Amino acid sequence: MELLNALNWRYATKRMTGEKLDDETVNKIIEAIRLAPTSAGLQPYHVFVISNPEIKAQLQPIAFGQPQIIESSHLLVFTSWDKITDESIDKVYETTNAQRGVPNEATADTVAGLKQLFSGFSEEEQYHHTAKQAHIGLGVAVAAAALLGVDATPMEGFSKEGVDEFLKLREKGLRSVALFALGKRKIENDWLYPLKKVRQPKEQFITEIK
Amino acid sequence: MELLNALNWRYATKRMTGEKLDDETVNKIIEAIRLAPTSAGLQPYHVFVISNPEIKAQLQPIAFGQPQIIESSHLLVFTSWDKITDESIDKVYETTNAQRGVPNEATADTVAGLKQLFSGFSEEEQYHHTAKQAHIGLGVAVAAAALLGVDATPMEGFSKEGVDEFLKLREKGLRSVALFALGKRKIENDWLYPLKKVRQPKEQFITEIK
Repeated sequence: MELLNALNWRYATKRMTGEKLDDETVNKIIEAIRLAPTSAGLQPYHVFVISNPEIKAQLQPIAFGQPQIIESSHLLVFTSWDKITDESIDKVYETTNAQRGVPNEATADTVAGLKQLFSGFSEEEQYHHTAKQAHIGLGVAVAAAALLGVDATPMEGFSKEGVDEFLKLREKGLRSVALFALGKRKIENDWLYPLKKVRQPKEQFITEIK
Repeated sequence: MELLNALNWRYATKRMTGEKLDDETVNKIIEAIRLAPTSAGLQPYHVFVISNPEIKAQLQPIAFGQPQIIESSHLLVFTSWDKITDESIDKVYETTNAQRGVPNEATADTVAGLKQLFSGFSEEEQYHHTAKQAHIGLGVAVAAAALLGVDATPMEGFSKEGVDEFLKLREKGLRSVALFALGKRKIENDWLYPLKKVRQPKEQFITEIK
């Protein structure tokens, strides 16, 4: 299976060459993320696609100086809704129903159930829920980039508050979730490249109930 | 790009035929999940792979009676660490270092940083963090299943406490995160099949900073 080869080929690239990816390639990765599923179809997240070198340089110290921030071609910033309001749920379902030619009455029970569910969540829990959905997109992005032979670094080690402030996310009803640098590996500079990929062995990672 | 076709083909399958998938196919999906990246390489989650019909039937009411629970071939239960202890961090790094032939001193700073980071998280926040990593795996699983032409339903609508109790997860240091039913679509019974896949338009979903 090509995906398994691609996942074995990829690694969390720590050093990149600075080469630019073409728009078509980047757009395929973005499209894969856009098509990723989310809980109840809310798609409660937003991705910033940063190719501007100055902006990446300003972000680098907020991401603990990691070199791939500036050596990447494109830096994706996954952000998600800071909360889940009744209005935001209504908006998603009204838009979806309109595109499907379905009356809003058809989803009234689902919408009421979701509103009830999330009203039982604290605002922090609502954010964790939306951030989890963004992580599904991140997983799909990892697969998409690897299949395209694009190097990528998923990153959660950065100042969330710093990125929120830098991109003025809270004013937009968003909070930062993860960074995802896209580019081309520069193996001669990369300490991680020669090291073995290590994962839990299958028998430890799964439990089969037959 | 084959992945985009696959993601457009897939949908959250609500009704399945009950047909069994062969082990090789299921193992490819599990292997893709196992290869998914996680923050700091902790891989803080565990997947239960349930093909036993009685166990699936007992789980169905805990998952709000959703038919694909019993109509699936295999039901994957994504679970993640209930907390992140110093010991669990040490264990991952010691195992990884041993496999890489690297002395533990080489990762001492990283390990100390991670312990400091997570000691600032409440136990609930630690769980949200591990659950997010499981969601990356879920995203990779979505891609893997779709590329193999396997239907799949990611589900977060179930009683987390019920599944935790049913699989005795807390005793194992785990909590439930998401369900993922694998099988074959039965389109004549599936209300969702004929409906259009709706996503936010690209211009709404991303912001480019060039």
